[in-house]
Amino acid sequence: MPATKSALVVSAHAADFVWRCGGAIALHAELGYQVTVLCLSFGERGESAKLWKQDGMTLDRVKDVRRKEAENAAKALSVHDLISLDLGDYPLDFTRENKMKIVDVIRKAQPAFMFSHSKYDPYNTDHMNTTQAVLECRMIAQAWGHNPGEEVLGAPQLYLFEPHQTEQMGWKPDTFLDITPVWAKKRDAVECMQGQEHLWEYYTRVAEQRANHFKRNSGGQSGGRDCKYAEGYESIFPRTVDEL
Amino acid sequence: MPATKSALVVSAHAADFVWRCGGAIALHAELGYQVTVLCLSFGERGESAKLWKQDGMTLDRVKDVRRKEAENAAKALSVHDLISLDLGDYPLDFTRENKMKIVDVIRKAQPAFMFSHSKYDPYNTDHMNTTQAVLECRMIAQAWGHNPGEEVLGAPQLYLFEPHQTEQMGWKPDTFLDITPVWAKKRDAVECMQGQEHLWEYYTRVAEQRANHFKRNSGGQSGGRDCKYAEGYESIFPRTVDEL
Amino acid sequence: MPATKSALVVSAHAADFVWRCGGAIALHAELGYQVTVLCLSFGERGESAKLWKQDGMTLDRVKDVRRKEAENAAKALSVHDLISLDLGDYPLDFTRENKMKIVDVIRKAQPAFMFSHSKYDPYNTDHMNTTQAVLECRMIAQAWGHNPGEEVLGAPQLYLFEPHQTEQMGWKPDTFLDITPVWAKKRDAVECMQGQEHLWEYYTRVAEQRANHFKRNSGGQSGGRDCKYAEGYESIFPRTVDEL
Amino acid sequence: MPATKSALVVSAHAADFVWRCGGAIALHAELGYQVTVLCLSFGERGESAKLWKQDGMTLDRVKDVRRKEAENAAKALSVHDLISLDLGDYPLDFTRENKMKIVDVIRKAQPAFMFSHSKYDPYNTDHMNTTQAVLECRMIAQAWGHNPGEEVLGAPQLYLFEPHQTEQMGWKPDTFLDITPVWAKKRDAVECMQGQEHLWEYYTRVAEQRANHFKRNSGGQSGGRDCKYAEGYESIFPRTVDEL
Amino acid sequence: MPATKSALVVSAHAADFVWRCGGAIALHAELGYQVTVLCLSFGERGESAKLWKQDGMTLDRVKDVRRKEAENAAKALSVHDLISLDLGDYPLDFTRENKMKIVDVIRKAQPAFMFSHSKYDPYNTDHMNTTQAVLECRMIAQAWGHNPGEEVLGAPQLYLFEPHQTEQMGWKPDTFLDITPVWAKKRDAVECMQGQEHLWEYYTRVAEQRANHFKRNSGGQSGGRDCKYAEGYESIFPRTVDEL
Amino acid sequence: MPATKSALVVSAHAADFVWRCGGAIALHAELGYQVTVLCLSFGERGESAKLWKQDGMTLDRVKDVRRKEAENAAKALSVHDLISLDLGDYPLDFTRENKMKIVDVIRKAQPAFMFSHSKYDPYNTDHMNTTQAVLECRMIAQAWGHNPGEEVLGAPQLYLFEPHQTEQMGWKPDTFLDITPVWAKKRDAVECMQGQEHLWEYYTRVAEQRANHFKRNSGGQSGGRDCKYAEGYESIFPRTVDEL
Repeated sequence: MPATKSALVVSAHAADFVWRCGGAIALHAELGYQVTVLCLSFGERGESAKLWKQDGMTLDRVKDVRRKEAENAAKALSVHDLISLDLGDYPLDFTRENKMKIVDVIRKAQPAFMFSHSKYDPYNTDHMNTTQAVLECRMIAQAWGHNPGEEVLGAPQLYLFEPHQTEQMGWKPDTFLDITPVWAKKRDAVECMQGQEHLWEYYTRVAEQRANHFKRNSGGQSGGRDCKYAEGYESIFPRTVDEL
Repeated sequence: MPATKSALVVSAHAADFVWRCGGAIALHAELGYQVTVLCLSFGERGESAKLWKQDGMTLDRVKDVRRKEAENAAKALSVHDLISLDLGDYPLDFTRENKMKIVDVIRKAQPAFMFSHSKYDPYNTDHMNTTQAVLECRMIAQAWGHNPGEEVLGAPQLYLFEPHQTEQMGWKPDTFLDITPVWAKKRDAVECMQGQEHLWEYYTRVAEQRANHFKRNSGGQSGGRDCKYAEGYESIFPRTVDEL
Repeated sequence: MPATKSALVVSAHAADFVWRCGGAIALHAELGYQVTVLCLSFGERGESAKLWKQDGMTLDRVKDVRRKEAENAAKALSVHDLISLDLGDYPLDFTRENKMKIVDVIRKAQPAFMFSHSKYDPYNTDHMNTTQAVLECRMIAQAWGHNPGEEVLGAPQLYLFEPHQTEQMGWKPDTFLDITPVWAKKRDAVECMQGQEHLWEYYTRVAEQRANHFKRNSGGQSGGRDCKYAEGYESIFPRTVDEL
Repeated sequence: MPATKSALVVSAHAADFVWRCGGAIALHAELGYQVTVLCLSFGERGESAKLWKQDGMTLDRVKDVRRKEAENAAKALSVHDLISLDLGDYPLDFTRENKMKIVDVIRKAQPAFMFSHSKYDPYNTDHMNTTQAVLECRMIAQAWGHNPGEEVLGAPQLYLFEPHQTEQMGWKPDTFLDITPVWAKKRDAVECMQGQEHLWEYYTRVAEQRANHFKRNSGGQSGGRDCKYAEGYESIFPRTVDEL
Repeated sequence: MPATKSALVVSAHAADFVWRCGGAIALHAELGYQVTVLCLSFGERGESAKLWKQDGMTLDRVKDVRRKEAENAAKALSVHDLISLDLGDYPLDFTRENKMKIVDVIRKAQPAFMFSHSKYDPYNTDHMNTTQAVLECRMIAQAWGHNPGEEVLGAPQLYLFEPHQTEQMGWKPDTFLDITPVWAKKRDAVECMQGQEHLWEYYTRVAEQRANHFKRNSGGQSGGRDCKYAEGYESIFPRTVDEL
Repeated sequence: MPATKSALVVSAHAADFVWRCGGAIALHAELGYQVTVLCLSFGERGESAKLWKQDGMTLDRVKDVRRKEAENAAKALSVHDLISLDLGDYPLDFTRENKMKIVDVIRKAQPAFMFSHSKYDPYNTDHMNTTQAVLECRMIAQAWGHNPGEEVLGAPQLYLFEPHQTEQMGWKPDTFLDITPVWAKKRDAVECMQGQEHLWEYYTRVAEQRANHFKRNSGGQSGGRDCKYAEGYESIFPRTVDEL
C-alpha cells in the first residue's frame, strides 16, 4: 500500500457516488486519503429523465451535462481523481475488456477500502451487476500472474453503500459513519446534480435518519453520541482487529 | 460507563467461555479491561459425560469438579469476576426471576461489549436460548424504569462467539481477533477442562484455522499480517465509526 | 364478519400504534372501518426515559401520563376502541392467561386484517415476542373448540408495521399505503406523544420517504402517482384475488 | 398506459406459459386485458424428449410441432398476441441484441403487469436466466434515453409464476388467483401440449392444491370462499394501495 | 441402540402423523422397525371443526372420537406403540414437566431417526413449537446427567415432515421416500380420519406430486425410476456416510 | 449409466480437486468408480503466487509446473481421467463454446454424481461462476435435442465441496464422508502441490475437524463412530430413497 492511504468508489452511474457515499468521500479526503471515483457510465440513458424531457436532446448533450455535474460534485467532495469509463448505461456492458479497465484502476489506486452498490437490485440491474464485476475485478487485481510486475492488490474491504429502497435490495448496514463534519460539502455536491433535484431532500432525510441510527447504536438514551448526519454501509468481508 | 472499561461474557455452561472466547478475555484483560464471566450453569448434566461414566457420580460432585475447572480457567485468563448462577442445564430455565439476575449482572458490569452464543443451534437449545435471553436482558437493562436510580445500560455490542459446527448454526464471523499474544494463556485455560480433553486439540485447530482467515482478510499474499492464533465473532449490532 | 368492517392493531407499548400505523388507522376509520387498538403495555418502564429523568417519578405516574397520551392519540386517529391490558413492559409477560385476553379481543373485533410488529428485533424483544403471541392467539381464535359458541375467527391478514431500523429487523415492506389524505390527523396523534418529542420529525421523515417509494412503485418517472406521505407494511399471509 | 389494459408473459420455452399462468391469461382476457405472450424459444432441444425419441426427428420438425402446440394453446386461452423469438434453448442466449428484442416487446405491450419464472432454478438455468433478463429489460424499457420518443415504461409488477418443485426454487407465492371460471379453457390449452401428456394431470393437481390454499387464506373453515382451481404467484415489487 | 431398529414420530395433533408420514411409518414397519407415534394432543380444540359444528358437542366427546380415529389409523399403519400425552391443543403447553414426558418417550424408544413438524408455521404455532420442543428434548435425552443410569440417546436424524402450504413454512424437502408399496395402507389410515374427509384427496394428490419429484430426481426422462406415491422430508442434521 | 459407475469433479483451478474432494476421489476409486477430474484452468494466474515471485517466470512455465502437480496428484488419488481445458483463470471465461466442452465431458462420463464449488464466493468469482456453469451444462447434457443420438444424462447429484472460509460462502454441509481409509493417499496428493505448501497443514486440520463432526453426527458420546479424517459436502438436489 502506498504511503498515502487511498480509497476507491466504483459508481455505476455518474451520480451514485454523490448520494450514496459523498460524506465518506469528503470525510476521508479531510483525513488525508486520496479518494478515486470511478464512474462506469454517466447514467445518460437511464438516470437523466429530466434532460430527455427537453426538446431536441441528444445522447452527447446528456453526457456533457452529466459529466459536468459529476465533475462539480467531485470537486465539492475533494475527490482526488474522477475517472469516467463511459461504458454506456441501461445496460452496462461488462465485457472482458471493460473489466480489465476496472482492474487497472484498482491496481493503480491500491485502495485501503472500496465502495460499490448493493448485491441485489431488481429495479436496477446495472447496480448489482457492477458489484458483481467489482468482486471479479478485485480478484483479478489480486492475481500475481495478471500483468506480472505490477503491484498486486491486498485485501481491501468492499463497502456496499446505501441503495434506494434498502429493504427491497436485501441491504443491511453494519457500519454507520458520522458525516456531520463534512455535511455542508456533501450537500453542495448533491446540489450539483441539477437533473435530479427531486432527490436532494430525499437524501438529506436519509442522512438524518442514519444519524438517528448512529446515535442509537452508540449508546441511545444513555450516552449515545450526538450526530446530525450519517451514512450506512454493509461490509462484504470480515474485519481483522487487535481489540474488539 | 465506568472509568475502567469492562466486558461481559454470558456462557450457557461453565466451559463455553474458555473454548469460544478465552483469547478475547485474556487479550482484553491485558488491555486493561475488567472482564466478567457469567456462567448460567456448570454444564453438569449435559456437558460432563466423562464424569458421569465414573461409578457413583452425583450431581453435586459433578458441579464441584466443573466449578473448580471453571475457576482455574478463569484465573488463567485473568478474568476479573467469575459468576456462576447455577440455573441448571439441559435445559436451562429462563424464568423471569432468573432473567432479572442476568440483568443485575449486566447493569453492574456496564460492559463496553458482551459475548454470547450463536442465534441458532439445533444440537444445543441451551445455547440459542441463552442468546435470546441475553438480548431480552440487554433490553431490560436499558430501561430507565427498571430499578430507577441504577445506572442505565448504554448500547454494548453483542458478539456471538464461535459455536461447534458453525455452518449448521448459521453463524458467520464478521470480525477476526488476533489472539497470538495470549495464546499460551488460552491453552492453559483449555487444559483446565479435564473432563473434555478430547476438545483441546479441536479448539487449538480452530484457532489455527481462524489465524489463516485473519491473514487472508488482512491482505493475503500481498501484505497480509502474520497471525498464529485467532478467534472469530459475529456482531449483532452495527458499528458507529468516524473512519472506515 | 360483522356488517361493519373492522381492523385490529396489537401494539406492544402505548405509542407504537401511533408511529407505525397511525395513518392506516385514520384512513380506514374514514373508510368506515371500526379500528380497535390493543396496547399490551404503556411502555412505562422501557419507553419513557424522558419521564424517568424527572425527580420523584413513580411507575403509576408514568403509566398515567402514557395512558393519557395514548388516549389523546387514539382520539386524533378516530380509533373505535382503545384497550390497554397493562401487562407490564420490558419484558412483556406472555402467560397463558394473558394470551387468552388477547384471543378475546381478537374474537370480539373479528378484524378483516390485523397489525403487529416485525418478526425479529434484537433491540426490543417485546416487539418480536408480541408478533409471535399474535400469531398464536390468531390460531386459538380460529379454533372451533375454543369457547364453543363464540364466533370463530376467519383468516385475517397480519400486516407487520414498520419497525425502527428496518434492515436490522429483516423487515421488508410489500405494501405501501398512501396516507396523504389523513396526514394531518397522524401528525396530530404523533404530537400527543409528549414524552418522545425527539421522534416526531423522525417519523415524519419516514412517511416522506415511504411516499417516494409509493410513487416509484406506482410508475416512477412515467405515470407514478404523486404521494406526500405513506406507510409501509409486510404481509405474513398470501392474498386471494380475482384479478391481479 | 393505453386505454385497453394489457399484460405480458415472458416464457422461456413454448409450453411454460400454459402450465404456469394459463389461468391468469384466460381470466384477464375475459376481463378485457390484451395479453401478449412472448416465447423466447420453443423448448425444442430441452423440453421435447417425447419427440426426439421418434426416429428421424430434426430440429426444424420439433420446432414446427412445438410452435403449432403453442399457437393452439394461445388460441384456447384467448391470447392477444403470441410472439416467438426463436432464440434457441438449453441454453437460451441472452446477447445484447436479443435483450433489445425483449425490450421492444415490453415497450410495445406497455403491460400493467408481467409474468416470468422463479428467481432460482438449479434444474433449469434457462428459467432463472430469463427472469434475470426480464428485470434487466424492464429497466431498459424505463430509460428515457433508450430510443427517445418511444413511450417509456411505467413500473409494472413482475409476477413469478409457479415453477416445478417450488421448494427447490425458493419460490414463495404471495398471491392466489381464483381461476375456476376459466378452468375449462386452461385444461383445453394444457391438452394442446401433446408432447408432454405426462404433465396434464400433474398441473391439474397443482391447480386443485392451490385452490385449497385459496380457500384457506380467504377464511378457511370460517367463511373461506370456495374455489376449485387456482394459480399462485410471487411478486417482486411492493404494491401501492389506498386501502389494505 | 437396541437390536430391533426403531423410529419415533412426534405429532402435535392426533392426525398429523397420518397425513405427513403415514407412508414412512408403514414402510419402515414392513422393514422391521418398531415405530412409536407420540401424539401430544388430540387436536380436539383446533382441528375438529366438523365435530364442533354438531349440536351438544363436548371436549371429552371430541377427544374420544379423535382418539379412536388415531388408534384406527395407527393400526392400519402397523404402528408399534401409539402414545397420547393429552397436553391440550391450541395452544400446546410446553411446561418443563411436559417436556420431561417427551424425553422419557425418546429415551425409551431409542429411535434411529425421528419425525416432527416444520421449523416455521405462522398458521399453526403448535406445529413449530413442537419441533422446537423436540430439539430441546433430544438434547436432554443425550445428557449423561439426566436420569443417570438410563440409556443415553445417540444422534438420531430429525426429519421434518411435509406441512400444509410448504412454501409459507420455508420447508424444503431434501429426501423423497418411495411409499408406493405401502400406499394402500396409508390411504386406509387416511380414511380413518372421518372428521377431516376434505383432506383425503388433498393428501393423495400430495403423494402423487411427490412421486413425480421422486422420478425427476432419480433420473427424469433418462432412467428416472417410476414411482406412484412418495413423501418428502427435510433433514435437520448432516448425514454420515461411507459412500456418496 | 454404464456398467462401471463413475463420478465427475469439475475444478475451477488445477489444485481445487485435491484439497476439496481428494478423499472422495480416492475412496470411490477404491470402491470401483471411474472418477474423471475436469480442471477448467491451471490456476496459473491467480493461484500460483509462489511461482510468480520467482525471477523470470512466464505463463507457460507456470502452467507446466501446475499441470505436472495436478497429474501427480491425480495419480496419487487413482483418478481415472484427468482433463485440463486450459480456459484461462482469473477470470475463467465461460463462452458458449467452452460450456459445450464441459457438456461433452459430462455426457462422456455419465457420472452417478458430480462435484463442484460453493454457490457463492465473494473472494473468488471463478469458483461460483464454475458452479453456475456446471448447473447450466448439466441441464444441456439432459436435453434430448442436444447432439441427438448421444446418450442423454440422467439426474446426477451435484455435491458442493468445501470452500475456504465456509461461513463467508454460505456453504452448509449436509453430508460427511469418512475418508480415513484413504487419508494417506489424500495427503500424498496434497504434497504434490509444491506451490501451495502453506495449505498442507491447513487442509489436514480441515479433515480432522470434519472427522469430529462425523463422529458427532453419527452418535456423539453415545455410539458415535470413530473417524480420523472426513470431508463435508453440500447437496444441491434432493435424494430419492427406499429407506430413511
